[in-house]
Amino acid sequence: MSKALRLAMSLSRSYPWVANPFIVSAPMRVMSGPALAVAVSRAGGLGFLGPAVKTQDMLVDLEKVSTLVEEARKSSSAFSSSTNVLPIGVGFQLWSDDLATAVSGIQKYKPCAAWLFAPKGGQEDYDHWSRSIRDASSQTQIWIQIGTLAEAKGLLKGSERPDVIVVQGSEAGGHGRHKDGLGLMTLLPEVVDALAGSQIPIFAAGGIADGRGAAAARCLGADGVVLGTRFLASEEARISRGYQGEIVRATDGAASTTRTLLYNHLRGTMGWPEPYMPRTIINKSFIEHQAGRSFDELKVEHDQALKAGDAGWGPEGRLATYAGASIGLIHNVKDAATIVHDVREQVLERLGPEGRSKI
Amino acid sequence: MSKALRLAMSLSRSYPWVANPFIVSAPMRVMSGPALAVAVSRAGGLGFLGPAVKTQDMLVDLEKVSTLVEEARKSSSAFSSSTNVLPIGVGFQLWSDDLATAVSGIQKYKPCAAWLFAPKGGQEDYDHWSRSIRDASSQTQIWIQIGTLAEAKGLLKGSERPDVIVVQGSEAGGHGRHKDGLGLMTLLPEVVDALAGSQIPIFAAGGIADGRGAAAARCLGADGVVLGTRFLASEEARISRGYQGEIVRATDGAASTTRTLLYNHLRGTMGWPEPYMPRTIINKSFIEHQAGRSFDELKVEHDQALKAGDAGWGPEGRLATYAGASIGLIHNVKDAATIVHDVREQVLERLGPEGRSKI
Repeated sequence: MSKALRLAMSLSRSYPWVANPFIVSAPMRVMSGPALAVAVSRAGGLGFLGPAVKTQDMLVDLEKVSTLVEEARKSSSAFSSSTNVLPIGVGFQLWSDDLATAVSGIQKYKPCAAWLFAPKGGQEDYDHWSRSIRDASSQTQIWIQIGTLAEAKGLLKGSERPDVIVVQGSEAGGHGRHKDGLGLMTLLPEVVDALAGSQIPIFAAGGIADGRGAAAARCLGADGVVLGTRFLASEEARISRGYQGEIVRATDGAASTTRTLLYNHLRGTMGWPEPYMPRTIINKSFIEHQAGRSFDELKVEHDQALKAGDAGWGPEGRLATYAGASIGLIHNVKDAATIVHDVREQVLERLGPEGRSKI
Repeated sequence: MSKALRLAMSLSRSYPWVANPFIVSAPMRVMSGPALAVAVSRAGGLGFLGPAVKTQDMLVDLEKVSTLVEEARKSSSAFSSSTNVLPIGVGFQLWSDDLATAVSGIQKYKPCAAWLFAPKGGQEDYDHWSRSIRDASSQTQIWIQIGTLAEAKGLLKGSERPDVIVVQGSEAGGHGRHKDGLGLMTLLPEVVDALAGSQIPIFAAGGIADGRGAAAARCLGADGVVLGTRFLASEEARISRGYQGEIVRATDGAASTTRTLLYNHLRGTMGWPEPYMPRTIINKSFIEHQAGRSFDELKVEHDQALKAGDAGWGPEGRLATYAGASIGLIHNVKDAATIVHDVREQVLERLGPEGRSKI
């Protein structure tokens, strides 16, 4: 049996409601709420709740998910194969989330997966969080997102091995590796080769917005694919309409997005560990920053734009519009289930029903 | 009939010796010489001669190619389907190559394709070169390499349309877009969508070193794939052994390579148009440059390293080692035919014999 097939079967045991190919909605901070996560899992994917403003808020989201899942089980045969686990995952930013609160939520709600990202203390933090989560809920699998080959190799040296490794390419929206990041095209197969002996499934994230990218990631060696920005333009995303409109409007991902800390600072978000910087759609704040306008002036303008609501986004807007380089491939808002189904169909068209598992 | 299939049939008429999938060796300056180009075409791919130090040297290479092709025709049935055209292409750097000399070579030797790149004068230069080449040889198809969506759209507005457009992702080695470049993962499908009505075949370059990358590029919408760095580690490459050893040795493409003008300047190469900067493997010159050592001192050390021959390359070396981020996927020197065959087989394993043409 090929390694890919063995991993596919193992994933299928842990996530029995997920269809082939394995499609995941990323844990985008705040914007990946209960409605989106549950819709994706109901469509045969795996939805993640994003990190909350405060870890405590995650418990509110988990309660809501729990209710939605219960309703789905009653009204249809959804999730009948997974009654001892919550069929959605939860995402944490390790540098800012509170471990004790996270663990209490995981213990109570038993999400099928916890996605860990951006520790301040490197591998030790991953080990500590992983151990604590596993102690609290043996059903909760540990997903860790990395963006470099060195990080991937580091995971093999930790005391707690992840159940899934997510490789994030530099096309990704939001926070990712800055100086040492690169696209999935070479990063992904190099990580796959480095981890070949590990038997850990590898998922690809960053720049995947349709079946073309998903099929490409599978060809490069991914066992599953993660879409983020594409789900910002879903009916279920917890997102302002002005922000969502930008995801649909903007084109030319390479030229219209950039990595910068400016918007974090305008929003008052400080403390991200040094290697990370978010990708965002460029608007007036960044253009005027580049032109030399002072931060204090930009901050005043930014805070006024905040009051403008939806009009605060757009080419003439000033608000943070974190998004991936795939924006040029996204032209409409769809419901999450349609996104999952469309991607699945496009992958099967390209790779056949066995997909990569025959390789 | 699908567009992809129509384009595949049209390519097959123009390049009858090329097998499916369409695999190309990039016109790497000096290093893509006659032996490499002919070996790739003999293996059922399309080999390109790289730009020469002086355009005049291209004529010497073309004469050599002409002899090799003649020999191949006599000793085997190679190229029997393409007797009125030289079954290799030629590459030009428009800002530095001499048009009159280029045209005289094309008129005399009738290469099947001319690959144009890096004009100083933008679209006008492309139009002028394309028209001059077509006037000199109607059999010579025009390939133009771009690295941004804006450039791709610009090509549709020119007076001379290219026969093939090559989309170069930022993973590519050697010269490519610097500030506004991004990986193939999102750039390629966005260009494919923008050119959907044009009926121009689109080839992908940058970060493709094996069948995984080639299959991924096909899934993203490429009609053919271009490998550069992989062929630097071929028996036939015109390359110093020290340089080639680095291609095989180096790993972690994202961390071990960078884009910088430093090595151009150390070599005395000036004049590349502003948007371009080469990707190179990092060695002592760059590390000490980053640490603040003066250019003059680095230049002295560089010129001494030049005299050291093969020892001038390597982690302790100082010489330019232009290469793509795919170096971590390349672990040995193979003959060019084996590279072509291996990539072809790996693509067919993933996508089936019809490849993308069924989509």
